[in-house]
Amino acid sequence: MANLVFEHGGNIYGVKRQEVIDFSANINPLGLPQSVKKALLSNFDRILHYPDPKARNITQKIAGYWGINERNVLLGNGSVELIYLITSTYKPKTSLIPVPTFSEYERAARCVKSKLHFLKLKEEEGFGLNLPRLAKTDITFLCNPNNPTGNLILKNRHAIENMAHKLIVIDEAFMDFLPNQKKYSFLWSAIKSRKIIVLRTLTKFFALPGLRMGYLIAHKDLINRLKQNIPPWNTNSLAQIAAELILNDKKYIKKTYTLIEKERKFLSGQLAMIEGLRPYPTVTNFILIKIEKPGLTSKHLRKSLLKKGILIRDCSNFRNLNNKYIRVAVRSHGENLKLLTNLKIIL
Amino acid sequence: MANLVFEHGGNIYGVKRQEVIDFSANINPLGLPQSVKKALLSNFDRILHYPDPKARNITQKIAGYWGINERNVLLGNGSVELIYLITSTYKPKTSLIPVPTFSEYERAARCVKSKLHFLKLKEEEGFGLNLPRLAKTDITFLCNPNNPTGNLILKNRHAIENMAHKLIVIDEAFMDFLPNQKKYSFLWSAIKSRKIIVLRTLTKFFALPGLRMGYLIAHKDLINRLKQNIPPWNTNSLAQIAAELILNDKKYIKKTYTLIEKERKFLSGQLAMIEGLRPYPTVTNFILIKIEKPGLTSKHLRKSLLKKGILIRDCSNFRNLNNKYIRVAVRSHGENLKLLTNLKIIL
Repeated sequence: MANLVFEHGGNIYGVKRQEVIDFSANINPLGLPQSVKKALLSNFDRILHYPDPKARNITQKIAGYWGINERNVLLGNGSVELIYLITSTYKPKTSLIPVPTFSEYERAARCVKSKLHFLKLKEEEGFGLNLPRLAKTDITFLCNPNNPTGNLILKNRHAIENMAHKLIVIDEAFMDFLPNQKKYSFLWSAIKSRKIIVLRTLTKFFALPGLRMGYLIAHKDLINRLKQNIPPWNTNSLAQIAAELILNDKKYIKKTYTLIEKERKFLSGQLAMIEGLRPYPTVTNFILIKIEKPGLTSKHLRKSLLKKGILIRDCSNFRNLNNKYIRVAVRSHGENLKLLTNLKIIL
Repeated sequence: MANLVFEHGGNIYGVKRQEVIDFSANINPLGLPQSVKKALLSNFDRILHYPDPKARNITQKIAGYWGINERNVLLGNGSVELIYLITSTYKPKTSLIPVPTFSEYERAARCVKSKLHFLKLKEEEGFGLNLPRLAKTDITFLCNPNNPTGNLILKNRHAIENMAHKLIVIDEAFMDFLPNQKKYSFLWSAIKSRKIIVLRTLTKFFALPGLRMGYLIAHKDLINRLKQNIPPWNTNSLAQIAAELILNDKKYIKKTYTLIEKERKFLSGQLAMIEGLRPYPTVTNFILIKIEKPGLTSKHLRKSLLKKGILIRDCSNFRNLNNKYIRVAVRSHGENLKLLTNLKIIL
C-alpha cells in the first residue's frame, strides 16, 4: 500500500475503446432528467457570463428541499472540492478513516499533513462500523452508505451526535438512492451541531458528474468559516442551472427509486448465483463483489470485460481490499443482463 | 478599507434588470467561437460522465500552442482556483501585492494568514511598477496587464528573472488580447525558473467565464508539487471540450484582435472627449476611467447607467482607488456607442 494510487471509477478516458458501458462509475442509469437537459440547452448562452458568485437561488432551492435554512448550505465544484476545503480550513492534526472507503478523504488529509488512522472494517462483520472503536481524532470521515461496500455504516443518529466532540464529516454521496433516506441522513443533526458536516452531491443521483455540483450542510458558523476559504465562481453556470431545476423533478426521482430497487435486487440475485462471485448486500446503486474463484484477479476480470465493452471498477487500490474485489454500478436491465452474460462466460 | 468587499464585475445576478449590456466583465464581445459552441452542443452528453481526471488532450493542446512541454501546464477551475492552490500549497508568510489590482490575490493570501504588503501604484506614474520598490516577500502577485488599470506593469523580462529569489506569480489573464503577447508574456521564463508561475485563462479571450477554465504554467517541479493539492475532476467535461478546440480557431483569434484594437481606440478617444471623464491608456480589452466631474461618484454613475440597461464596474472597492473610478470593457461598436451616448447624457 506504499504506492497508493488515487484512481477512481468512471475514467472512460483511460481506456482505449470508445464505446463502453460504464459500470465503474455509480451514476443513475436513467441519465440526465429531460427537463434539465432541455433547460441547459436553451440557456446555453449563460456560459458567456460569470456564474452567480453567491448562487442564491440554488442554495435556497436545496435548503427548501430539505426544509432547512439556506445559511446551512454551501455549494462546491463537486463534493470532492468540499472535502479539500474542509481539510485545508480545519487542518486536522489527526484523521480517522474507516477503510475500505473513497480515497479522497485520505488524499485531502495528506495535503495538510494530517496523521492518518485507518480503522479496518471487517468483512466478517459485513464491513460494519463498530462505533466505540472510533478514536478521538481531530476529524473523522464516514462515508454513509459507504463506497465501495454499499452498506450503511451509520444508523444510530443519537450515538454519533453524542460522540461528536471533534469534527465528523459524513459523506452522503449515495444517500439519495435510498427512498427512506430521511430516516438515515445526518443533515438535520449537522445543522444543529457544530461538529458534524454532511456532504451531498447532485452528481450521482441526477447523472451529471461531468458538470460538477456538490454541497455541504452544516451549522451556519461552520459554513461562514468555510466560505472564507472558497474561491469565487467555484460552481459553473450550467451546473447552477441544473441544480436550480433538478430537485423539482419528482417523477424522475420516483422513477429512479423504482428502477434501482428492482435492478439491484435482480443484479445481486443473479450475481450470487454465479459460482466464484460473492456480491455483498447493498442499500444503494452499486455492488461490491468478491472474486472467490481461485487464480482470477480483479485486474484480469476488468481486462476481460473491457474486451466486451464493459468497464468495471477494479477495487485492488482500495485500502483494506485486494485484487479479489470489484465494484459494479446498478444499471438498466439490458445493461445488467449484458454484464451477467459476460461474467458467466468468463467465470 | 477595513470592510473590504471582495466583489467583482460581471455579477449580472446582483442587478434586478434582466437585460443588461455587461461592460463590467472584461469578456470578448464576439462571444463564444461558433466552432466551439457547435462542438459543445453535439457533445453535450459528455456531462453524463466524469471529466477526464488527467485531461491529457487539453494540457497537450495548450502546451503545443505555446511550444512548451505538457509537464509545465496545470489546469484549473478558472485561474482563480489556481491562485488559491498556490497560496494553500506554499503558505507564504508574507505577500506583496501592487494595488490597485484584482482582489483575489489578497483574499487567497489572507486564507493562509499571510502578512500583506501593498505597494501603491501611483496614478501620476501611470500606475506603473517601480521594480526596485518590490520588497522581498515570500510571494509577489503581479497582474500583467494589470486589472483594472489596463497597463503592462512588467516589460523587462530580464529584470524580473533576476529578482525572482522568492515566488513571483504573474497573472496574464488579459495578455491574450495583445497581438504581440509573445513579446510580453513571462511563460517562457516560468518554465525555466523555479520561482515564477504564470496564470492564464480561457475565460476572457474566448468568452466562456461561465464554463471555468484556466491554467498555470511553471517549472515541472512546481507543477508536481501543486498537483498534489488539487482536487480531482476540478475542470468540468464541457470546459474540457471547449479547451481542446478553442486554440485552433485562428480566425476567431484574428477577428478579436482587429475588433478590440479598433474599438479600444474608438472608445478611448470618445471617452477622452467627454468632459469630466479621464480614460487611462490601456493595452487590453478594458479601460479604467477617472470621474473628474465634481460631485459625481462611481456608485451614482453606475446606478444611472444601469437604469439605461448598461452595467459598468464601480471601482470604489479596489484598494488604492476610490469612488471616482470606473472600469468599462471594450465591446462591439454598437454597444460602445450606446455607452457613450448615455455617458454624455449623464455627464
